[in-house]
This record gives sequence, structure tokens and C-alpha cells, in this order.
Amino acid sequence: MNPPKTDARRHHDPAVRGFASDNYAGVHPEVLAALALANGGHQGAYGEDDYTENLQRIVRSHFGATAEAFPVFNGTGANVVALQAVTDRWGAVICAESAHINVDEGGAPERMGGLKLLTVPTSDGKLTPELIDRQAWGWEDEHRAMPQVVSLTQATELGTVYTPDEIRAICAHAHAHGMRVHLDGSRIANAAASLDVPMRTFTDAAGVDILSLGGTKNGALLGEAVVVINQDAVSRMRHLRKLSMQLASKMRFVSVQLEALLARDLWLRNARHSNEMAQRLAEGVRAVHGVEVLYPVQANAVFARLPHDAGERLRKRFRFYFWDEAAGDVRWMCSFDTTEEDVDAFVAALKEEMAR
Amino acid sequence: MNPPKTDARRHHDPAVRGFASDNYAGVHPEVLAALALANGGHQGAYGEDDYTENLQRIVRSHFGATAEAFPVFNGTGANVVALQAVTDRWGAVICAESAHINVDEGGAPERMGGLKLLTVPTSDGKLTPELIDRQAWGWEDEHRAMPQVVSLTQATELGTVYTPDEIRAICAHAHAHGMRVHLDGSRIANAAASLDVPMRTFTDAAGVDILSLGGTKNGALLGEAVVVINQDAVSRMRHLRKLSMQLASKMRFVSVQLEALLARDLWLRNARHSNEMAQRLAEGVRAVHGVEVLYPVQANAVFARLPHDAGERLRKRFRFYFWDEAAGDVRWMCSFDTTEEDVDAFVAALKEEMAR
Amino acid sequence: MNPPKTDARRHHDPAVRGFASDNYAGVHPEVLAALALANGGHQGAYGEDDYTENLQRIVRSHFGATAEAFPVFNGTGANVVALQAVTDRWGAVICAESAHINVDEGGAPERMGGLKLLTVPTSDGKLTPELIDRQAWGWEDEHRAMPQVVSLTQATELGTVYTPDEIRAICAHAHAHGMRVHLDGSRIANAAASLDVPMRTFTDAAGVDILSLGGTKNGALLGEAVVVINQDAVSRMRHLRKLSMQLASKMRFVSVQLEALLARDLWLRNARHSNEMAQRLAEGVRAVHGVEVLYPVQANAVFARLPHDAGERLRKRFRFYFWDEAAGDVRWMCSFDTTEEDVDAFVAALKEEMAR
Amino acid sequence: MNPPKTDARRHHDPAVRGFASDNYAGVHPEVLAALALANGGHQGAYGEDDYTENLQRIVRSHFGATAEAFPVFNGTGANVVALQAVTDRWGAVICAESAHINVDEGGAPERMGGLKLLTVPTSDGKLTPELIDRQAWGWEDEHRAMPQVVSLTQATELGTVYTPDEIRAICAHAHAHGMRVHLDGSRIANAAASLDVPMRTFTDAAGVDILSLGGTKNGALLGEAVVVINQDAVSRMRHLRKLSMQLASKMRFVSVQLEALLARDLWLRNARHSNEMAQRLAEGVRAVHGVEVLYPVQANAVFARLPHDAGERLRKRFRFYFWDEAAGDVRWMCSFDTTEEDVDAFVAALKEEMAR
Repeated sequence: MNPPKTDARRHHDPAVRGFASDNYAGVHPEVLAALALANGGHQGAYGEDDYTENLQRIVRSHFGATAEAFPVFNGTGANVVALQAVTDRWGAVICAESAHINVDEGGAPERMGGLKLLTVPTSDGKLTPELIDRQAWGWEDEHRAMPQVVSLTQATELGTVYTPDEIRAICAHAHAHGMRVHLDGSRIANAAASLDVPMRTFTDAAGVDILSLGGTKNGALLGEAVVVINQDAVSRMRHLRKLSMQLASKMRFVSVQLEALLARDLWLRNARHSNEMAQRLAEGVRAVHGVEVLYPVQANAVFARLPHDAGERLRKRFRFYFWDEAAGDVRWMCSFDTTEEDVDAFVAALKEEMAR
Repeated sequence: MNPPKTDARRHHDPAVRGFASDNYAGVHPEVLAALALANGGHQGAYGEDDYTENLQRIVRSHFGATAEAFPVFNGTGANVVALQAVTDRWGAVICAESAHINVDEGGAPERMGGLKLLTVPTSDGKLTPELIDRQAWGWEDEHRAMPQVVSLTQATELGTVYTPDEIRAICAHAHAHGMRVHLDGSRIANAAASLDVPMRTFTDAAGVDILSLGGTKNGALLGEAVVVINQDAVSRMRHLRKLSMQLASKMRFVSVQLEALLARDLWLRNARHSNEMAQRLAEGVRAVHGVEVLYPVQANAVFARLPHDAGERLRKRFRFYFWDEAAGDVRWMCSFDTTEEDVDAFVAALKEEMAR
Repeated sequence: MNPPKTDARRHHDPAVRGFASDNYAGVHPEVLAALALANGGHQGAYGEDDYTENLQRIVRSHFGATAEAFPVFNGTGANVVALQAVTDRWGAVICAESAHINVDEGGAPERMGGLKLLTVPTSDGKLTPELIDRQAWGWEDEHRAMPQVVSLTQATELGTVYTPDEIRAICAHAHAHGMRVHLDGSRIANAAASLDVPMRTFTDAAGVDILSLGGTKNGALLGEAVVVINQDAVSRMRHLRKLSMQLASKMRFVSVQLEALLARDLWLRNARHSNEMAQRLAEGVRAVHGVEVLYPVQANAVFARLPHDAGERLRKRFRFYFWDEAAGDVRWMCSFDTTEEDVDAFVAALKEEMAR
Repeated sequence: MNPPKTDARRHHDPAVRGFASDNYAGVHPEVLAALALANGGHQGAYGEDDYTENLQRIVRSHFGATAEAFPVFNGTGANVVALQAVTDRWGAVICAESAHINVDEGGAPERMGGLKLLTVPTSDGKLTPELIDRQAWGWEDEHRAMPQVVSLTQATELGTVYTPDEIRAICAHAHAHGMRVHLDGSRIANAAASLDVPMRTFTDAAGVDILSLGGTKNGALLGEAVVVINQDAVSRMRHLRKLSMQLASKMRFVSVQLEALLARDLWLRNARHSNEMAQRLAEGVRAVHGVEVLYPVQANAVFARLPHDAGERLRKRFRFYFWDEAAGDVRWMCSFDTTEEDVDAFVAALKEEMAR
């Protein structure tokens, strides 16, 4: 078929893929197709459209009867809206030192949300009740920002995954102290695929109050949602989203992407595939002498340590990032469009560079 | 051709259109087609992609050699990033009382940007040097938020358009006082079409320092850009965009939409069409006894005053908003997909409701 | 008696007084004496002291059984803490365009409190239910900052005073719309003296929810308090005060100043005196040909219009400020230490300068 | 002599002293006497007074010819103003995990200043170039809050003191990376007394750019100052102070307190005395079996570890705080008015409680 007419031109080579980030991938074709479905005619703006309404039904099927979705633009926006929603002006957020909200959001939680982060070092990106207790104190002390919410990332920034029991224990612990639990689910699909359970097993059924539901890394073009599970914990989410600059005017096009992912199983297919590619990659890497895989590979990320110069040479052949350049630590991400051939070629290249 | 496979379904009737907002329209088919072009393979995230790079060339063709585009998600985000960029922590923004930043952004400029707005009432949404002077004073007074930038909207929220001379005079006046000029160009294309001049005639050539370039209302799915014209006025735009939660990870899909609009003349075709529909609508409305058109119709908006009950009846047939419900003032917006038949049917319906 | 030993020296002439501001005056001797009383030994910091505890009793005697005082440093701090206390993150404040929070606080309410101000022009600095209605709408509209509190200034920045009935009507109106009422009482004592009623007549008895209680302009060295009347309207005031940088460590010295003013009638004596001096001044001024007194003189301020050059000459003899330099409007303030001789000398000088 | 007349009454026993905080002490009599000197007559408000002007001369004598003082209310205010002054909207502050700005300011730096804190664990409250390097990276990475200033506390929150060489090395390191250095000098006098050097040896002469100069803990009633040393690093300090709610109207009374302390040697006498009392206390404590002194005692604080129940019993006799209740760690502070008898009685009581 002929490509539809447009003044835009193709500027890139669609055959090139790497291991830098699951954000480097494009849109899954089924998501792209959904956009066309939602197009045409007039629909209410700012969420007053049929796609956003329908999304509520889908989100309830995944996260329980009380769940409500508030589509937003990106992960930072989702996190800052969600965390503001469950904190007072004096509230603070307990999170892992490695949490995305702490290290990768340019200070947006502090600057835009007025949030204080109370961080805890972890060995694998995962909090525990004991680790949380290092910051969970001093609620009556006005000199201390009040711990009001625990923020988990699932799957974590280090590619590890909490078990449902672990999250259940954290939620019970947090709730016993009067705190809420937020789950940064930028890669929630990868966690569910890894655990082979429905998402609700480790969200609403485990006690999570509010979550950032990732779409972009799962194959969307652009779109996430704040999902409120515990309605008692929040109010005026729409106002909060708007004043946080996260309100899409033509929201139908965000909602329909989430529909395309979540209506049946595209979210899971994409996540399973990227997880499998990460397993294949880890297996291949472990067979290469001199390269150490750093954390349990439970989602779509492989962290490894290798000699810096070998890493540099490999980066000339495939795009990826050093995680800790001094240590020689690298991060390799798989995405929904990573192929077995991509992985095998990458492992082969790694072998070559390590052999030099 | 068969529609591509997707789990999403069509939930709306694409034949229904109204006059509520240019945000109620969907995506122009040429923009939608551009998304597919940009898809496939891996591209650097966060703006490190070939589409964002190419966009710079296009933006320079429209706004001069110094122009640089920073794609963002929405108009509020564009305005808050742009205004932070040209103010210090103690800075204030002079704007019309009717400005979008003052009345329609949920307080985002104040809350997220820490900006004080110094507002001036206007008769038609347009500032003048004289009106600006009502707030342009007290730079040395620490008790007063310091006026550092004048923010204009072009076309205005009331559907009026500044002439290039008017903007030139405002810029000269602002610069003489050491202030910068920001242009909220959410509907900049409509202004250019109305004036029948290139956009640069009333932006870089007139002295504008920074602008919010609208894409969404012009036919994009979702996407705007902060365009820096005066590079001396800003620094670290990328950091500012990120901490303001306006950084798209898969930015190629925002940039390619702007390319589809701006590479040749789609932006102008869309704007001309919606302006023409507004002219047709205004003409039709003026012929209806008892309805008053309120402002000069210079872009794609028609403001009118009619008896409240007639307005209410008409709203049951076509979606639109009261602008000032007590006064019976309404706003009717035309968009790129408004047809002559839509307008004529609407005017006919208006006649009927006025005749009851 | 010999002055106590100190390395500090006197640098100013204590005989010089002017009409620039009630902040130009020093401390009332009885307040200064109170500081010595509270000195010596150790007292709990941050409000855990006997003076702050005792202040609660005194404040309840003035503002009713539910009143609770939170001493702070200055008026801007009191206002920003109080207004944050009665707004959500999405809240806005309805106030007069001339309100101190709008024109004289450097944008602190917006920048530090994240507050949007919805201003209304007034003829005399006083709001009315009708004027409030110009901004009291749109609570369900997420695009609009939500009006949650009406802020009055009593006495106003223009030297006028609300009657208890006027405040009662405003409170009833605000409460009927679900809004709270804040009273900026930087010069509350002057208002009470002017009305010749207890302060509670126009605060708790009239429906005010929270107030900024002024001490500094009434004769204190430095010290104000947020007084919560409606306890249901607030929570965690101590946290809010701390995070707003308004928590005094040696708070006993702020509290004892308020005790010295409020325990018996020093607050009233000081206010009556300054009001009387303003009356004497207004009377004198009205007798000078060519000078117009601008607003009703109901507190300790006299606003007048006179030829600019006469104003300039007079300013060389007595310190005071132009209020609107272009119009030739000036503000003359009386304070607790203004003497009849000061006033008479000033009027004589005014006559001389007008006669040139 | 008869006490001067006031309606306030003495509510506390001036003979009672403890070891809870140097904020529990009152005002040094020479500071109190200075307030009377500055009283009387009218003086310009907001710093336009002779005392604030004179303070500049004094501050230059301590911190060099470029130093300029901006009096503020409290330590949190000083820190938040100073740190805003040397950061852009995207800036972050590197500090020790134990820094007052991180643990004891209720999140004010984040919420009011929009600052991100990048913390480093330390063994004794002191940063080093190596520790700083754990956070000093990523200036070009928009996802990371940009490290723009290193904040030291001197003396530290743990009662330790940086040598001038240590600060010099930190400043050189920070400057080499384009960062500024802020010194939180809440107890700067204690540090100078401990090191037996002028304050400038470890401030302007060592490369510090801006500092928070403590008055309150040194014997003032209430008052600190931001001291700018590197004028190139800042602008519009007056605006920044005002919008940060730290501008005193009757500033002469803050400035004259700092004059009383700094004009000759009261600051040093007070600091030396409290340091000596801490040495005496530490010596006494070290002789008590079962009590461990935790950090080098270099200023006016003694941290110790003792059995929790002994601590609890002792707290019934003298006020002080647990620092880490789980560990049994306590903090004992000496102040300018601590006597040898106080210390000896306290050590005797400690012995008794440890012997039970």
C-alpha cells in the first residue's frame, strides 16, 4: 500500500536497534493503529471523551472496582501528580536512593511538587519494612518533613522485581504507620510478566493506594496514567493534574493507546517478550569471560560490569549507557521490538570486544 | 484497505462535530501519517533523535537563524517553561487579565513556575504599551515582584489579532524597560493566516524573545514547542523543560508532528480554513436578529451575545461553551475540520432557536 | 540610671520622627521591658516555653475559646502561613487588588505558598459580597484555580475600616460558598480602636476563620501571630509554620511582646493614639488649600493628593512616601509615638510648601 | 533598680538551666541592652536604618572588604535565602546527610527554595572533596538536578569543626567544578573559638562564597544574617530575602543585636565559654563508667551513648534530647550561660543514674 501523504519525511533507519533504553523503541503497530480509530469527528477535550470513559472500565478490570485512571503525559508527571495527591504540604516520601523520582527527574518532585524525599540505600533497588523504618519516624516533629507515603518502583530501576508478598508486607507496614503506598509502575507490565500474575496481585490486592501506570516503555507512543485505587486517599485529582501541567487537551489519543495495550493482552505480550530477550541476553553475557551480571535479571534490564575500554568499544557498535562509568557498570535494556537476532549479535560483539 | 489490527475499538461517531473548541477536533490525517513514518527502529530518547534535529532546521526557516525549538507536551507546559526561562526567582509577568496563563491554567504559572502575574484589564484581549505601563514599574522595589517579561497571546483568547506593528511597539517598549517579550502562540498559525504574513513578521522580526508554538490546536495529536529566539535571554532550557515535567521520552513523535505541520504549508492551510469558517460563521450570525458578535473576528473564534435560553437550547444541538453565562456570552470555535455545511447547519439552528 | 554595658553604640537621633510608616517607629517601652522579664534561665525552644503557653490564654480572651496563636516573624510570613493553612494545593485566594498580599509581598504568596490570587478592584480597599462574586465561581472547573478563601485586610491598606456587619456579611457569603475567611490584621488594633469594639466583634463573632494578628506596627519590636479561630479549617499548623521558615527558636521573646501588648490594654492605647494623630493630621490637612484627602480616615493613615513639587519639597523635611507618584498621591502614617507637636509641625510645613 | 513597667509578667524560673539546646538559653544581657540603644525615634524600615548600615562595616571587618550582610530572622531562613542566591532553578545542593538543611528544616529548602539536596553520608558530619565527588557529577545531564553549590556546616551538627585547610580544599575542589560554597554558620563563632582563628580564616580567606551567620545560638534574641562574600555569585539579594519572607520591617533591632555580638568580642567570649563548658562536660562524662563520648568534642556539643533507661532517668532531672533513641545516643549542648556548677551538677547526676 502507498504511504499516506504527509509533508514529513523519514529521517532514520528503522532497521537499527540497540540496548540503550526501552524508550529508544518506537510505538507498537497495534498502538499506532488505535490512534487512527480514535481520530475523526469531535470529542470532548480534557478527558470528556468516550475513550477516556472506556479506559475506566478497562482499568477497573486490572486494578479492581475502585480504580480510576487519570491519563497524563509522562512518568515524571505521573509520579509528581500521584505523590502530591497523597501528601500534605508538609509531607515527605520514603523511597530507595536509586528511585527514579530521586535520581532521574531533575528535582521535579521537590521543585514542582514541593516534596521532600527521604531516601534509603538498598542493595538491589528494593525497599523492605526494615529499610523503610530507617526513615519512618518523627511524625510529630515539626522540624522533620512528615513521612506520609512510601514509593516503590516495580519493576525497579535495577531490573529487579518485588514479589506480591514483599509488597503486601510493605503496604501493611506503611499503613500501620498511617502512611500511603505509591507504586511507580513505569515498567509494571514487566513485573507482572516476570511474576506471572495479574497486575492487581501486587497492587490493589496487596494494598497499594495509588500508582503510576506506565504506557510509553510498554509500547505506547506517549502516555501514562495515575491510577487511584484508594479513593479515600485523594481528592480533586483533576485539579491536581491540571495545575501540574499534565492535562492533555485531546486526551482521547492518550486513552486509546492505553486501551490498545490493556484491553486484552498486548501489554503482557510486549512485557513478556522484552523480559525473555533480557533473559536471553543475560544468559549470553554470563557465558562471556570477564563480564559480571550485577543484579538478578527479573525484568527487561541487564546490568553488568565489564572493563571500561571493552565497554567503550562496544558502545561504538550498539547504543547503550554506562550506569556507573567509574566502576565500568553498564545497563542494557530490552524492549518490545528487540529480536533474538539483536541479542545474539550483541552477545557476539561483546565476546569480540572482550577478546581484544 | 483493511484497518490495521488493534485491540482498541472505535467508541465515537466521527461524523459529529461542534463549535466548542479547536481541541475537540482530532488529528489532521497528514499528521497522523507522519507518526508512522517516524516509527520503527531505535532512536535516541529525550530529543536525541533525527526528527527533533530536523525540526530545528524547519523552525529556523520560520523564526530566523537563532531560533531553537524545545518540544513539550501542552500549552500550559510551554508557557510555564518559557516564562521561567526569562525570569529570575523574583520575576513577574505582565499579561492581559484575559490571558490563558491567568485564567485557564489552574494556577500552574504560580504554583509550578513560582511566577507572579501582573494583570491588566483590556477591552479586546490585547495589550498596548500604555496598558503595560500600568504594571511596568517598581523594578528596584523589593516589595514588588519584579516585572521581567511581557506575555502576549497571538491570536488572543478573544479571537483578536495583534498587527506586526503593534507587537513591534510592545517589544520596543518592553526592551526599553529591560523586559523580555513572550508570545503565547497557541493559535499563532491563525494569527499569521489572518494577517497574511509569515509568522516571523510578528515574532523574531518584531522583537519577540521566546514563544510557545502551538501544534495541538493546529491539527496535531499532542505537541507544542518552546521556541527560543533570543538565545541571550535564556540558559539551560533542557534542564528547565525536564524539571517542569515536559520532557517527552519518545520525542521523535512530537517533533515529527510539528514537522508535518510546518515543513511546508499544512499549518497555514489548517489555519486559513478555520479562520474562513469563523468568517462564514460570523457572517451568518450577524444576519440573525437578536444576536450580537462581540469582538472583531480575526482568527478562528466567534464570540457572541444572545438570550440565555436560546443559547441553552442551541447547546442541546451543538456542543459549545458559555463564556460569561450571566451575560449570555458564548464562544464558538472553528477548527481545521469544520465544514461549510457544519457552519450553515449551525447558523440555521441558531436562527430557529432565536425564533422560538 | 546608667545604661547597661554593651559594645553596640547609638547611631541615630531618637528625636527624629516622620510620617513614612508605622514601621519606622521603634518599640514601645513597655514591650521592651517585657523582653527583660522573659530573659534568664532556659526555656523550651520553638514554642515549648511558658510565655507561648500563657499567650494562648490571652489570645482566647480576645478571640474566643477556640482561638490558638502561632507566633511568627512578620506579616508576610503570617499571611502566607495562614493562607496555606486554609487552601489545598489547588486553592486560590480572593482579595482586593490593593491587598498587601497582592502588591507588597514580593510574590511570596505565589512563590512560597503556591497560591493563586484572584483579585478584585475596589474603590476603598474593601471587598463586598458583590465584589467577591466577581471571582467566586468555577469551583468545579479544573482549569481555574479554586477559590477557597477570601482574604480581607482590617484596617485596609488605604486606611479604611470594615464595620462588623460588613465582615459578617462577607463571612456568611464566603461560607455559603464553602470558602474560608482570612483576615490580615496587620493593623487590627487600629480597626478595633476606630470601631470602638473588641477585636472579636469583627473576627470570631463575625465568622472569620483565621487571622494574621499584627504586633510590629502596634509597638512590638518584631512579632506577629497566626491566630486560628476555626480549628476545623486547619491541621498541622506547627509543621506549616516551620516549613514556611517562620518558626522562632527563642519563641518566648516573640510571645512576651504579644503578651505585653495584649494582656491588658497597651494594644488599644497604642492604636487609639495613632488613630487620633491621624485624625488630627487629616483635620489639619483638610484646612490646607489645594490638598485633597483621598479616603475616609478611619485608622492611622491619611492619603492625600497634592501637587507633585510641593510633595517633593515636603519630603525633604519629613520622610514619607508617594503612593502614586504620577497622580501626586501620598501616604502619611501615624504611629504610637507620633506626637501632637509632630502633627502640627508637619501641617505647618505642608502649608508653607503649598504656599510657595 | 525597679523593673520598668509592663503588663507582661514573668512566667518562668530564670534559675533553671539544662543541656537540651543552645536555643534554650535567653539573650545575653549586652545584647538586650543594645536593643534599648537602637530604640526611640524613627528609622527607615526594611534595612534603610543606621544600624543596618553600620553592620556592614562590622561585617566587612570580619569577612573582608567584599562582604555584605543581609539580616534575616532565623537559620532556616538564612540557609534557604543563601542557597537560592547561588543556584538556578535547576540547581542542587551537595551536603552531608546530617546537615541541618536536610534533617531539621521541615523540607523548607525543597518546598520554599525549590532546591534538591544531594546528600552524602559522613562519619562525623564533615564533607571532604572525596565525599563531595560522590554527588559532584552529571552537570550536563538534564535528568539530574545540577550540583551548583556545596553546603558545609561549621561547627557541624555533630559538634565537630573543619580546619581552615579542610575548608580551603573543599572550596578549591568545588570551584574547580564550577560550584559555589555555602557555609551554614549557625555556630560559626564556636568554630572560630575552637580553632582560635578569626572567622575569615575559614570563610572568605578559604574561598567560601556565601554564609549563614548565626546570631541566635550565640546569644542574640533572634537574628541571623546571610553574608555574601563573593558578590559575583549573587544578584538581587534584597528581592530574594523579601520573597522568602525573611525581611524584617524594624530591621534596626536585628542589626543592633549582631552589632552587640560582633562589634568587639562578645561573639567570641560567648563561644569560648560554651566550648569550654562542653570540654568540661566531656571530661566529666568520660570519667563515668558505661558512657561513651561519640564524636570529637570540638565546639559546644557533647554526643554520648549510654543505656536508655539511665538516659530516661537523667532526662527527668535535666532537659536534653535523645539524638538516636534506639541507640541510646544523646546530645548535650552548652550555651553562653552554662556555668561550671551546671556542668558539675549534671555530671554528678549522670554518675548517680549510671550507678543505679
